[in-house]
Amino acid sequence: MKIGVLGTGAVGRAMAGALTALGHDIVLGTRDPQRTLARTAPDRRGQPSVAEWLKEHPAVRLATFSEAARHGEMVVNATSGDGTLDAVESAGEANLAGKVLLDIANPLDFSQGFPPSLSVCNTDSLAEQIQRAVPQARVVKSLNTVNTSVMVDPAAVGGGDHTIFVCGNDAEAKGTVVGLLRDIGWRDIIDLGDLSNARGTEMYLSIWVRLMSTLGTPKFNVKVVR
Amino acid sequence: MKIGVLGTGAVGRAMAGALTALGHDIVLGTRDPQRTLARTAPDRRGQPSVAEWLKEHPAVRLATFSEAARHGEMVVNATSGDGTLDAVESAGEANLAGKVLLDIANPLDFSQGFPPSLSVCNTDSLAEQIQRAVPQARVVKSLNTVNTSVMVDPAAVGGGDHTIFVCGNDAEAKGTVVGLLRDIGWRDIIDLGDLSNARGTEMYLSIWVRLMSTLGTPKFNVKVVR
Repeated sequence: MKIGVLGTGAVGRAMAGALTALGHDIVLGTRDPQRTLARTAPDRRGQPSVAEWLKEHPAVRLATFSEAARHGEMVVNATSGDGTLDAVESAGEANLAGKVLLDIANPLDFSQGFPPSLSVCNTDSLAEQIQRAVPQARVVKSLNTVNTSVMVDPAAVGGGDHTIFVCGNDAEAKGTVVGLLRDIGWRDIIDLGDLSNARGTEMYLSIWVRLMSTLGTPKFNVKVVR
Repeated sequence: MKIGVLGTGAVGRAMAGALTALGHDIVLGTRDPQRTLARTAPDRRGQPSVAEWLKEHPAVRLATFSEAARHGEMVVNATSGDGTLDAVESAGEANLAGKVLLDIANPLDFSQGFPPSLSVCNTDSLAEQIQRAVPQARVVKSLNTVNTSVMVDPAAVGGGDHTIFVCGNDAEAKGTVVGLLRDIGWRDIIDLGDLSNARGTEMYLSIWVRLMSTLGTPKFNVKVVR
């Protein structure tokens, strides 16, 4: 499948790499590709530059948000929460119309330091904000409850015996995402219902960040025992 | 141990029953004991009246919030979230000073129907509001992430192989609560740190209520797989 991945950070790269490995045709979207490619030093987290990463992933093409969205039959929002609405606007409603828009971002607000709070929650969510911004896209929320490393390799934690959630207003779009999740290796996938359920999966981040501190690792997940 | 349980609803009764069964000396607190005892019909959920329940639990004594708090070496807040701050005020700061105040309530706001939102979240929590209201109490948050039936009988779900969280500012108070949790049957207990972590466990309710709808039962819990 042709997939556009919005965002060149750790999450976007991991998703682009994993989806390429599964045989998908990926265009990675960024605000300004020339500017992104001009950076050659590792970022502040010691992550290699996008230019270096692309050399190791020759099948992935870097382009603008708009080109990545136009390329995709499915589009993955892997931008940071505070950049999401701008990125979606840049991607362009016409380029997203009718397409599955898999939102894996979280509205984390680090303005007061760590732990972050949420910039939207309780009676609204980032996923619903996206859906309102691009009403013709078929937004599905998933994968935002786990760290990047777990997202693309669920077996890395507890042999993969833990849970991932999906929600969205379009049943067919959710079906497409569930298929992709199964391809990645997810086995216990719970469909929570419509997109307002993203409030729950985003608000879960509040305990997630505390657990990361307590456990000393982001490599964990929850299993819904029932 | 002498324990005061604030709240005569399903949660308060279940805790009072379970703690009595463990040999503790329980006083159940309510706003107006005479008025509570005067109700003889089952409540709107079909739950027997408090008077009927007390006949089956003769070791439990019903009293005012204030008397229950005075009785307890530990006090359990099992009131509904919207009644908690009033109940704690009625219990009286002097009766709570220096004591472990185990808060198992959630700030659920049903004013807009189901699913509920939270009346406080993100940058504050009910547990922190309680701690500010009674600064000399040693507030510990726990058990608010599971249904009553699981709270007092963790083995009822998945053989008990799932996780409960504690947080609070007083290490000794948390130790007392952890001891009680172990006595009830909890095996995987994660100490998240100070009381601000209650924001995470309370915000988790947003996904909990959606999971209850999806699974069709409140008898579930999460296991932190790491």
